[in-house]
Amino acid sequence: MSPNPQYEKIGKGFVQQYYAIFDDPANRENVVHFYSATDSFMTFEGRQIQGAPKILEKVQSLSFQKINIVITTVDSQPTFDGGVLISVLGRLKCDDDPPHSFSQIFLLKPNGGSFIVAHDIFRLNIHNSA
Amino acid sequence: MSPNPQYEKIGKGFVQQYYAIFDDPANRENVVHFYSATDSFMTFEGRQIQGAPKILEKVQSLSFQKINIVITTVDSQPTFDGGVLISVLGRLKCDDDPPHSFSQIFLLKPNGGSFIVAHDIFRLNIHNSA
Repeated sequence: MSPNPQYEKIGKGFVQQYYAIFDDPANRENVVHFYSATDSFMTFEGRQIQGAPKILEKVQSLSFQKINIVITTVDSQPTFDGGVLISVLGRLKCDDDPPHSFSQIFLLKPNGGSFIVAHDIFRLNIHNSA
Repeated sequence: MSPNPQYEKIGKGFVQQYYAIFDDPANRENVVHFYSATDSFMTFEGRQIQGAPKILEKVQSLSFQKINIVITTVDSQPTFDGGVLISVLGRLKCDDDPPHSFSQIFLLKPNGGSFIVAHDIFRLNIHNSA
C-alpha cells in the first residue's frame, strides 16, 4: 500500500468523531469500536494496555462525568502502509477540576474500507520542573 | 516482523541519544543521519517536509544557539513491523527565551540492524484558549 493522500482530512475527521463520542457520557464506551480486539495498544498516563476489552475497562474506569475537550492543534502524517499518524494537543476540563493541557497520539491503520486505532498514547502535560 | 520486546529500552535510548546531539550546536546537524534521504516525514510547528535534505535545511535554519531540553516523560509502544512509536513531553529553553513546554513524536522503523526516524512531529504546547 502507498501513502493515503487524504491523510489530513482523515486525521481531522477522526479526531472530531473520536472526541464527540468520548465527550458524551452516554456514548463514551463506544470509542472501543475504534480499537482492535487483540492488537491495539493504549498507553494512558504511562500505563500500557492492549486489546479492546482492556481499553473498554479503562474507559469505564474514568471517574468523571462531564468532560469538555478543546483541540488546539491536529498534525497528521501519512504512513507508507496507508495509515495515518495523528498528534493532538488540546485542553480538557473534567467536572469541576481546573483545565489541563494534554497530548494524545493516534496511529490509524487501514482495516477494510475504514481504519482502526492501532496505537494510542495519552498524557496530561504536567511538568515537574519549574 | 513482530513487535520488538526491547521497545521501551529502544525508545528511551533513542530519545537520550537524539537530544544529546540536538542540544550541542556543533553537532546538531548530525541528527539528519537518523532520517531517510527520501521517505522520512517531519512536521515542525504544523509545516510538513519530507526527506533528509529538507530536514537538514530545517535544522540549519533554527536560529538559536544554546538550547536546554529537559525531558518530562517518554512513552514507547512497539509496532507490529518491529518499529517503536515514541511520545516525548518536555520543556525547552532557547538562549534567553522563557521555557516552553513541547511535545515530539518519533516513529522509528527498523533499518538493517538499526532504526530510522520515519515520522517526526514537533509542537510547542501553546494554547490559545484560556
